[in-house]
Amino acid sequence: MFYHKKHLQYYTRPQKPNPVYAKNVQELIGGVFGEMTVMMQYLFQGWNCRGPAKYRDMLLDVGTEEIGHIEILATMIAHLLDNAPVAAQEEGVQDAIVGAVMGGQDPRDIIMGAMNPQHAIMTGLGASASDSVGYPWNGRFVTSSGNLLADFRSNLHAESQGRLQAVRLYEMSDDPGVRDTLSFLIARDTMHQNLWLAAIEDLESSGKETTPVPSAFPQNLEKTEHSYQFWNHSEGEQSAEGRWAKGKSMDGKGEFEYLANPQPLGPEPELPPPYPKLYGTGK
Amino acid sequence: MFYHKKHLQYYTRPQKPNPVYAKNVQELIGGVFGEMTVMMQYLFQGWNCRGPAKYRDMLLDVGTEEIGHIEILATMIAHLLDNAPVAAQEEGVQDAIVGAVMGGQDPRDIIMGAMNPQHAIMTGLGASASDSVGYPWNGRFVTSSGNLLADFRSNLHAESQGRLQAVRLYEMSDDPGVRDTLSFLIARDTMHQNLWLAAIEDLESSGKETTPVPSAFPQNLEKTEHSYQFWNHSEGEQSAEGRWAKGKSMDGKGEFEYLANPQPLGPEPELPPPYPKLYGTGK
Amino acid sequence: MFYHKKHLQYYTRPQKPNPVYAKNVQELIGGVFGEMTVMMQYLFQGWNCRGPAKYRDMLLDVGTEEIGHIEILATMIAHLLDNAPVAAQEEGVQDAIVGAVMGGQDPRDIIMGAMNPQHAIMTGLGASASDSVGYPWNGRFVTSSGNLLADFRSNLHAESQGRLQAVRLYEMSDDPGVRDTLSFLIARDTMHQNLWLAAIEDLESSGKETTPVPSAFPQNLEKTEHSYQFWNHSEGEQSAEGRWAKGKSMDGKGEFEYLANPQPLGPEPELPPPYPKLYGTGK
Amino acid sequence: MFYHKKHLQYYTRPQKPNPVYAKNVQELIGGVFGEMTVMMQYLFQGWNCRGPAKYRDMLLDVGTEEIGHIEILATMIAHLLDNAPVAAQEEGVQDAIVGAVMGGQDPRDIIMGAMNPQHAIMTGLGASASDSVGYPWNGRFVTSSGNLLADFRSNLHAESQGRLQAVRLYEMSDDPGVRDTLSFLIARDTMHQNLWLAAIEDLESSGKETTPVPSAFPQNLEKTEHSYQFWNHSEGEQSAEGRWAKGKSMDGKGEFEYLANPQPLGPEPELPPPYPKLYGTGK
Amino acid sequence: MFYHKKHLQYYTRPQKPNPVYAKNVQELIGGVFGEMTVMMQYLFQGWNCRGPAKYRDMLLDVGTEEIGHIEILATMIAHLLDNAPVAAQEEGVQDAIVGAVMGGQDPRDIIMGAMNPQHAIMTGLGASASDSVGYPWNGRFVTSSGNLLADFRSNLHAESQGRLQAVRLYEMSDDPGVRDTLSFLIARDTMHQNLWLAAIEDLESSGKETTPVPSAFPQNLEKTEHSYQFWNHSEGEQSAEGRWAKGKSMDGKGEFEYLANPQPLGPEPELPPPYPKLYGTGK
Amino acid sequence: MFYHKKHLQYYTRPQKPNPVYAKNVQELIGGVFGEMTVMMQYLFQGWNCRGPAKYRDMLLDVGTEEIGHIEILATMIAHLLDNAPVAAQEEGVQDAIVGAVMGGQDPRDIIMGAMNPQHAIMTGLGASASDSVGYPWNGRFVTSSGNLLADFRSNLHAESQGRLQAVRLYEMSDDPGVRDTLSFLIARDTMHQNLWLAAIEDLESSGKETTPVPSAFPQNLEKTEHSYQFWNHSEGEQSAEGRWAKGKSMDGKGEFEYLANPQPLGPEPELPPPYPKLYGTGK
Repeated sequence: MFYHKKHLQYYTRPQKPNPVYAKNVQELIGGVFGEMTVMMQYLFQGWNCRGPAKYRDMLLDVGTEEIGHIEILATMIAHLLDNAPVAAQEEGVQDAIVGAVMGGQDPRDIIMGAMNPQHAIMTGLGASASDSVGYPWNGRFVTSSGNLLADFRSNLHAESQGRLQAVRLYEMSDDPGVRDTLSFLIARDTMHQNLWLAAIEDLESSGKETTPVPSAFPQNLEKTEHSYQFWNHSEGEQSAEGRWAKGKSMDGKGEFEYLANPQPLGPEPELPPPYPKLYGTGK
Repeated sequence: MFYHKKHLQYYTRPQKPNPVYAKNVQELIGGVFGEMTVMMQYLFQGWNCRGPAKYRDMLLDVGTEEIGHIEILATMIAHLLDNAPVAAQEEGVQDAIVGAVMGGQDPRDIIMGAMNPQHAIMTGLGASASDSVGYPWNGRFVTSSGNLLADFRSNLHAESQGRLQAVRLYEMSDDPGVRDTLSFLIARDTMHQNLWLAAIEDLESSGKETTPVPSAFPQNLEKTEHSYQFWNHSEGEQSAEGRWAKGKSMDGKGEFEYLANPQPLGPEPELPPPYPKLYGTGK
Repeated sequence: MFYHKKHLQYYTRPQKPNPVYAKNVQELIGGVFGEMTVMMQYLFQGWNCRGPAKYRDMLLDVGTEEIGHIEILATMIAHLLDNAPVAAQEEGVQDAIVGAVMGGQDPRDIIMGAMNPQHAIMTGLGASASDSVGYPWNGRFVTSSGNLLADFRSNLHAESQGRLQAVRLYEMSDDPGVRDTLSFLIARDTMHQNLWLAAIEDLESSGKETTPVPSAFPQNLEKTEHSYQFWNHSEGEQSAEGRWAKGKSMDGKGEFEYLANPQPLGPEPELPPPYPKLYGTGK
Repeated sequence: MFYHKKHLQYYTRPQKPNPVYAKNVQELIGGVFGEMTVMMQYLFQGWNCRGPAKYRDMLLDVGTEEIGHIEILATMIAHLLDNAPVAAQEEGVQDAIVGAVMGGQDPRDIIMGAMNPQHAIMTGLGASASDSVGYPWNGRFVTSSGNLLADFRSNLHAESQGRLQAVRLYEMSDDPGVRDTLSFLIARDTMHQNLWLAAIEDLESSGKETTPVPSAFPQNLEKTEHSYQFWNHSEGEQSAEGRWAKGKSMDGKGEFEYLANPQPLGPEPELPPPYPKLYGTGK
Repeated sequence: MFYHKKHLQYYTRPQKPNPVYAKNVQELIGGVFGEMTVMMQYLFQGWNCRGPAKYRDMLLDVGTEEIGHIEILATMIAHLLDNAPVAAQEEGVQDAIVGAVMGGQDPRDIIMGAMNPQHAIMTGLGASASDSVGYPWNGRFVTSSGNLLADFRSNLHAESQGRLQAVRLYEMSDDPGVRDTLSFLIARDTMHQNLWLAAIEDLESSGKETTPVPSAFPQNLEKTEHSYQFWNHSEGEQSAEGRWAKGKSMDGKGEFEYLANPQPLGPEPELPPPYPKLYGTGK
Repeated sequence: MFYHKKHLQYYTRPQKPNPVYAKNVQELIGGVFGEMTVMMQYLFQGWNCRGPAKYRDMLLDVGTEEIGHIEILATMIAHLLDNAPVAAQEEGVQDAIVGAVMGGQDPRDIIMGAMNPQHAIMTGLGASASDSVGYPWNGRFVTSSGNLLADFRSNLHAESQGRLQAVRLYEMSDDPGVRDTLSFLIARDTMHQNLWLAAIEDLESSGKETTPVPSAFPQNLEKTEHSYQFWNHSEGEQSAEGRWAKGKSMDGKGEFEYLANPQPLGPEPELPPPYPKLYGTGK
């Protein structure tokens, strides 16, 4: 069960509105690696968790924090959208000049075109559950498999992409308020990258799971002769220069091998004739 | 530019058809962590790569291999769908018995209902670009950010989820042909988990990137006082027991700290009145 | 900012697992009118609210409650999925009988086919962010317009559809645990229908908004001669029998009129020739 | 069965093209609350209707009218897109000036970027089945439950959001032709809001359905002690000031109660260990 | 503007309900090639048409007919869903037997699992705007380009896939009512395939458009040395045996040529270093 | 199994970057008729092919070529995105002037708004698996039915729409490098339109399939009295002037007939009362 406090976890108000930048910030709410994803991902992982209590508790802690991050960004977007030039006005001298320059196009239309139009038409200058191109967040962005090592790796990747995107948005703005708020969220992403690396170490050192995930599957059931081979599917062998091409494998269970000129091991596929009542084309 | 050889990379034909299992195998083609995802992800990362040639080459090698994995699974699905009972037939004695037992429902309908109906209606007993519930694969499953550490972590997570799903499908079948083919794909997933761990080590040891991603962003621009704090958003402190709650942070740049009773640092949000021409509700 | 308590708002455990029913319950989590929708809808409406504080506070209260409803249903699904027959086993006598009856199809496959396969392959017997056919929840399900009467009507409709669906699921189960938990959620839906009706009355009696929404738009700018006309677009006049066809209009500003035989008021559309550089077909 | 007349229900041609505004108008065709939604929603409700003939007839009347509204807006979009500057041209003096000002960016590109590019590339300056950000209309926008009170409330909400959006688009344009056409559609939305309020009154006064929907479900099967309680999930009690917090409930069957400090009624969730063959992480 | 008649264009009622088959019929309503697609496609093509009046008129005729086809199929689905076993009942002797055989699973659940659960939970035994796996119809299924030859080819393909799917559904049923209704729709698909072939001949013989579409683009602007070459991208030369590999090209403007061993004509791609402020990985 | 060569099939580098045009080019990668569609469509058709070897081989040849077309366009997009003005900079004199003219909006924001913001935030100036409005490619764009005439018609339509879109993009650019690369892809589209026309002739002349598709379905099972009738669903008879309204039908099996004033042949639909446990509204 959940509770809400009215104060934001952290916030500095943007110095001035910027409806185009507001569009871009949506990526951090409703994008693949936005706060809606990490919130839902950690909560579902916590609710589905059948492992040790400390993992379940930790997952729900972080998931609960992320709800508040959506709140911060939604507030920022509302402030950035203030006074967006969305309604038609008397044409001023200035508009006439720009309109002339822009081939007759009203400059207000250009700004409208650079905004997300749904910020005006649909939400009335509020945030939406979408990304920076207006594509709605969806449930397939959530990963929750029940295998904690697989899932902690998902979380690590989400926080890596998420911090990268937050940093890019930081660089795109020179508004001190925006930058100050983002510098808090970026710090939290730093923590969360460290958190998932720590959780991976914690889990692996407990012996519950290791590489290759899932480690409880008896490895003799896989074709182990191909478990440590790099197949060079392109001409040229620059790919032989990496750590993955030679030496001990990362799981310590094999030796990397480089197949410079790999050949198929299987047959040509041969499909039986089509089922007549489905009217496919046969030989 | 790409070339095709007719032989499959590896393949053993299923011993007998099973249209329900064919539905499930679609997850490995068109699911979030299916072969379409890793193929497209590695190819786009390779095409967009502005880093060292060995990474670009390696990404395109593995991406090219994955196209062939879709081919293997599409062939398996076509074989599993053979003779699926999709057309109405004369009712036999046996049907009459089951129909009676099933409350008048034709048993063939039950099997049809357990299949993916589009395997009959849409593809004529062939594979489709969808997952195990018939939801189509989509381009948001692809991650390609230009930052290689962020992306290698994405790849590691995709191969972890992917191997987990392949292993689950292995356990769901007792068909020796299906199991033999999957045991090859599972071995390749083992390699690919090792590969991305090796690529991460290779990249980090080159000094190009490390935690927190992106590491070139000056960390003094973030609110570092919050960069290593765990916020306990729920009652109870089981989450204090993990590696993430105390000790040196994983990036070696800080010390984990546990906030048992975290309080908001920001103000209550205060939005300005609505823009009159958009007809929102004000105070 | 948000906090979590470990206890569920309400819960009685299902008496026995039922993986097919678990699939159906997903509708209440990730369907158009599931708990993810109302949670996100009320939170976004609250965060975007520029109206009186009591509305914002109330919206965030209810939105926060709904997070806990997802938690309840996710827990129910995990319990319903226990021991789902997802792995291949030694064929027993019973299987042989059913298999014979079912035309050689393994009965386990039939159950697998009746489940949501992603409950096994993707989530490892946990809930997902999808509806009862596995379609992911998405952000377009959220309505938040900034106009509170429009939005309270959205909320009323969501709770009406939501309670209807919960009641249907209640009728589909005879498990006392499932029914007890649902009877709590149904009661909350009763409250929430009453709540939105009360909020509509509260808002309308404050004079801030009334029919037609948005009421601040000067009605003389619309073609008022058509504002209270029913157009009978089909043969037959059964539609003349309703309250909408005669008498005072509901907003008290007009008189309903029934156009039995409506004719177009506009011209035939006439498009200019295609732009040559886009190579459309002209006259 | 349906018939078509060539004349539009109503139409005034835009005075001048405006490709950016054309993008925005798409919201009224293919957005969540666009004409495609109401058309499909009323038609499906009519086709699925098992209630009195007057409701079915009325639903099909209004649904049929809405097809013609798509036609009106599609024609408007085609006119707004005329002569859109989509093809490369000789650079004129004016372009050189703006280009210089815009940092070398061709002003034509700016206009192209402000348009929906698919209006040029995909439809050849015609309307599409998408919203104002190019997201395609989809079938989940349609609500048709078989319970007419639930559905009339859906219709009321759709017309409320729809009129709000049409009014916003009216304010965004100063083109007399556009405004005249919209003023007709806004009038129809006025009628349709009144229509659904009337239909609700008609249905409720018939005794077929009332609050809480569905009213035929025996209310003693729900946990009635929670059916009229407001749970205050946030600090502060501004939400106690509304009509929903005290007094007779809107359905007349209870008394509102305000829980200032609500506590969980359920247990901590306890999931059983993971199923071994699915390789989740256990305790 | 549109009108509705209450009688269906054609209809014979199914002899008995079949909720699983009802699920499958949804493909013909809301699938990629369902009636919603052709209806919307022909209407949008008609509304966007800037060519001769006979084409516009014809497109709107056929589009209007297709609305009535959705109506026919929606009615069929409602009849097929009658008495679907969706509510829990007293367990009878028969259920006990099957339940025992099915490993304790209630047979009603199996039927529920074979149905589309949304037919019970969401639509109350009515049709929905989705396909046979419950995926919603969406606007990207509509093709309307403004080039009539391109579009007539789209229409021909849609009717070919559509008739194929209708025929498959015909074969899947032995209900005389279902088959009779489908035999009408199949006949209409026969007409519509012939119609689009005729429209293509009509258009080509008018000289307005021919192969390659769009034919007004000056062919000397393309690299004509590659305009009639078949590139053999796989080992083996079975593809040399077809009509496409030799002889006059179909547009009469070239000669087919077979490249048995094609080689790249372009350079290795070389991307510039990453933009520093976006924190990608460079060399 | 697949192989990769590092050289591009064809390529000329754009002369200068253009981030807005880069957005538009995405339509050719991830749009409905982009290279991802034809690649996946031909590969799935090849993998699912149960017909003559020459068709399977040919399908896989062309599908394999199309992978290389994505590679070409991804490279073009990366070059077009170079130096995109995505990071905040010191405001120069020029910016001040434009900013003043544009009502205070920073011109850099305008360019950012005209770009696809995900090209900066998500991909770091690389291509993505989306179309020109950022909507992700999805698997429903792929058609593979098992009936080769139906599928070759799909392919013909895809190449017709595809060449039309490529030509439109050619006209939208005046960059010699962009135009040169597109002129190669347009030539390949010319070949592929000819290819599918040739494949249709090849298949039809083999007697395997003809109009109406699927031709093996006994035509006496359809209502042949309606198989060649044009129904005039609108007022006016301009549609009587086309080839489809009179003369021999295109399949040579009937005579076109024009129904000027078509009337319904079916009954009024009559649905049974609602199932009580689902709480729909009855009479």
